[in-house]
Amino acid sequence: MIKSNPDMLSTQPLKGFRDFYPEQMAFQNWFYQNLKAVSESFGFQEYEGPTLESLDLYAAKSGEELVKKQAFTLQDKSGNILALRPEMTPSLSRMIAQAAGRLTFPVKWFTYGRRFRYEQPQKGRGREFFQWDIDILGTDSFAADAEIISIAASFYKKLGLTPQEVKIKINDRKFLQEKLSAMGIDPDLTLPLIKVIDKRSKVTTDNFNTILTDAGLGTEKVSSLLNILDDKDGYKNSEWLTGILNIIKQYGFDDYVEFDPGIVRGLDYYTRTVFEGWDVKGEFRSIWGGGRYDNLTQDVGASQTIPGVGFAMGDMVMEEVLKKCGKFPALTVNKTRVLVTVFSPELFDKSIELSNILRRENTLTELYPDPRTKLERQLKYAARKGIPYVAIIGPEEIEKGLVTLKNMSNGEQKMLQKEQVVEQLI
Amino acid sequence: MIKSNPDMLSTQPLKGFRDFYPEQMAFQNWFYQNLKAVSESFGFQEYEGPTLESLDLYAAKSGEELVKKQAFTLQDKSGNILALRPEMTPSLSRMIAQAAGRLTFPVKWFTYGRRFRYEQPQKGRGREFFQWDIDILGTDSFAADAEIISIAASFYKKLGLTPQEVKIKINDRKFLQEKLSAMGIDPDLTLPLIKVIDKRSKVTTDNFNTILTDAGLGTEKVSSLLNILDDKDGYKNSEWLTGILNIIKQYGFDDYVEFDPGIVRGLDYYTRTVFEGWDVKGEFRSIWGGGRYDNLTQDVGASQTIPGVGFAMGDMVMEEVLKKCGKFPALTVNKTRVLVTVFSPELFDKSIELSNILRRENTLTELYPDPRTKLERQLKYAARKGIPYVAIIGPEEIEKGLVTLKNMSNGEQKMLQKEQVVEQLI
Repeated sequence: MIKSNPDMLSTQPLKGFRDFYPEQMAFQNWFYQNLKAVSESFGFQEYEGPTLESLDLYAAKSGEELVKKQAFTLQDKSGNILALRPEMTPSLSRMIAQAAGRLTFPVKWFTYGRRFRYEQPQKGRGREFFQWDIDILGTDSFAADAEIISIAASFYKKLGLTPQEVKIKINDRKFLQEKLSAMGIDPDLTLPLIKVIDKRSKVTTDNFNTILTDAGLGTEKVSSLLNILDDKDGYKNSEWLTGILNIIKQYGFDDYVEFDPGIVRGLDYYTRTVFEGWDVKGEFRSIWGGGRYDNLTQDVGASQTIPGVGFAMGDMVMEEVLKKCGKFPALTVNKTRVLVTVFSPELFDKSIELSNILRRENTLTELYPDPRTKLERQLKYAARKGIPYVAIIGPEEIEKGLVTLKNMSNGEQKMLQKEQVVEQLI
Repeated sequence: MIKSNPDMLSTQPLKGFRDFYPEQMAFQNWFYQNLKAVSESFGFQEYEGPTLESLDLYAAKSGEELVKKQAFTLQDKSGNILALRPEMTPSLSRMIAQAAGRLTFPVKWFTYGRRFRYEQPQKGRGREFFQWDIDILGTDSFAADAEIISIAASFYKKLGLTPQEVKIKINDRKFLQEKLSAMGIDPDLTLPLIKVIDKRSKVTTDNFNTILTDAGLGTEKVSSLLNILDDKDGYKNSEWLTGILNIIKQYGFDDYVEFDPGIVRGLDYYTRTVFEGWDVKGEFRSIWGGGRYDNLTQDVGASQTIPGVGFAMGDMVMEEVLKKCGKFPALTVNKTRVLVTVFSPELFDKSIELSNILRRENTLTELYPDPRTKLERQLKYAARKGIPYVAIIGPEEIEKGLVTLKNMSNGEQKMLQKEQVVEQLI
C-alpha cells in the first residue's frame, strides 16, 4: 500500500488554508451553484476581479483592523505594497469607477471568489476563504436595500434554512447617528463609537459599559445609548427602515428579517443601512453582513457619487451553520456513471471503442487507465470510487458481440448489446 | 452622466492583472463549463488547492526560472517565505502525498483556478491567469498518457478547433536521453541540454548551434543532435511512443497528434512523455503543455513513488487562439429573461408580486430597483442591458387584471393574464 510519510509536515497546506479534495469540492460546487441560481433569478450578472490589489485601495475605507492587522501584503519589484484581497467591495467600487462612463446603471452584479485575512484560524474562519458578494450600484432608493436583503433570505430558503434557524437583523447607521447627535454626542466621536458598539456582543455587559465610559460618555449618556440599542421598536420612527421592512414583506421574506438597533457593522465605508445574518441559537454571532456604501466608489476614483448596497457571505461559516442545523446536503462526490474495464491488453481496443460510444451519448464514462491490471482489482476500484455501473468486454462478450453490464449496487449483471448498454445508462 | 476621473490611475487593476466585467466573465464561464464537461465525460473528479504555498514546495522541482524569477513571494509573520502558486502540479502532488493512504488509485482529477507569474505581460500572457490542470496519478501505464492527450484533443474538438488549426506534439524525454547517452553525452549534461533544446524555437538556427557548441558539444555531436531533433520518424523505434500513438488512434484523435523529437518542455520534474499544444500557423508557439512526472509526489513527501501524468492549459492563450481561428464563441452576457418595470411608487407592490410569481416559475427576472424612475428610462435600461422582455403594470393593467408584456426585439406588446406571461417567457 502507498502511504504518506508521517515525518514530512510539508504535505499539509499552510495554517488557515484548505485543500479541496473531491469531497470538499463537491460542497464548494453545490454552494456556488445555489448562490449563482439565486443571484441570476433576481437578474444579477456575474463578474470577478484580480486577487491582488494595491494596499492603498483598502487603506481608503476598509477600516484599520482589516488593513493593518489582517492583510496579507507583499512588495512588487518597484517597492509598491500589494495586498491579497481581504474583501471584494473595494475592487468592485474600483471597477465601477473605471467603467462608469460605459455602464448602464443601476448595475446589479454578483461574484464568488477567494478572500484572504491573516487571522487566527478557528471553526468557520480561515486565512483563505470564499465569499459571495452581491451588490446594486447606482441608486439611492431603499428598494435596492430591500431587494438585497430579500436575496439573502431567498438564499436561506433555497438552502433549506428556516426563519426558526437563521435571521437577518437590520439597522440604519444614519438613524443611529441622528439619535447620537440628539444626545449631544460630538459627530467626530460617532465612528469610533460605532466600532465600540460593534463589539458589544463579544464582551460582557459590565465590560461594554466600562468601554463606553472610557470612550468619554457620562453615566447619563451611557444609559441613553443603552436604551437606544435595546429599543426594538425604534425603527417605527424611521421612514427608511419601515420602507425597507414593508418591501421585504411584499417579497414574502418578513419572517427572516427583524430590526436590531445594536447592529452597526465594523467596516468604515457603510453610510446608511447595515445588516447581518445571525443564527437564532447564537452559536456563531454574525454569519455574514452587508450595508449601504454611498461614498466608496467616489473615494476610489469615480468623479461622482455612485451609491451602492450589498452583502458578502463566506463559505466557511455557512458550512458550519448548515451542519449545526442538520441541513448539510447529501453530495454526489463522483458523477461518473460507468467504469469500462479492460479485460486484457489485447482487448484494450474494444474497451476504448465502447467508451467512445458511451461518451458520444453523453454518458460520463471512465476507462480503466491501465490494461495490465486484473479485472477483479478494477471491479474493486469501481466499488471504492462509488461508480454505479461496470462494463466488461472479455473473449466471451466479443464472440457474442455483446457487453456485460454489472450494477454495482445490487451485483446484478447482464450481457447486452451496445445500444442496450447506452439505454440502460441514460 | 457619471464618468470616471481620468486623473486617477487607481481605477485600473495592477499591471498584468485583469478585471472581469460581465462580458469577460461570460467567456470565463464558457471556458470553464467546456473543460469541466470534457473532464467529467472522461470520469475525472474536480479538486482545488490553496492559492498560497510554502516556496519550498516549488523549489523542489519546478525549475529555477519559475521559482527564482517568476514567483510572487511574501513572508508570513514567522518569516517563512510563501508563494502565490505559479502552477498546480506541486500542490496536487502534495495533496496526493498527504492522502495517499486513503485514496483509491489511479486517481483521475481536474481543476481550474488562478496561477501567478511575475513576468512581462503580453498578448495571451498575464501575471494572473487561469489554468485547467488534469492528471492521472498512480499508474505508470502509457495508456494513461494516451488518455490525457486524448482529453486535450477532445477539448479542441469541443471548442470547434480543427486539426488544421491546432495540434498536439509529443515526445519522450527518456527516449531522447537514451539517444544522448548513446552519443556519449555525460548524463549530468542531459537536463541542462534539455533546457537549451526547449529554447530552440525561440532563437535562430545559428544562435541555437552556437548555444550547443558553448554547452560543450563538438561539431560532430551538434550535427548528431540536430539529426535526432529533426527525425520525424524517430518514434518508430520507441515502444512507448508507438504505444501511445496507437491508443490515441483508437480514441479517434490521431489527426490532432504528431511526434516531434524537439519537444522537451522546460519543467524539471518531467521524467518521460512530454507534450505541447501548438497552433498550426505557429503564431503562439506552445499554447499549453504537459507530461509524465514519476518522482514528484515522492519528492514532496510521499513515502513511495506515485507516478503521474497530466497537462495544464491557460485561459489567456486559448482565448487568443480561438479569436485567431475565428472560433471565439457568441456569448450570452446577460441571462435575464424579463425586466419587471415599476409604473409608480404606489404600484411597486404589484411589480414585486409579479416578480415573485415569475421567479417561482424559474424565470430569471429583474425588478427595476428604484420605483421613482420614469417608465421610459426603465425601458431604455432594459434595451441597453439586452433584456428580451419587459413587463408593465400600470393603472390600466390593474383595472383589467392584466400585465403588458413587451418584446424588446420587435417592439410588439400585448396585454396578457399573469399565467400567459409566465407561459410566454418559458
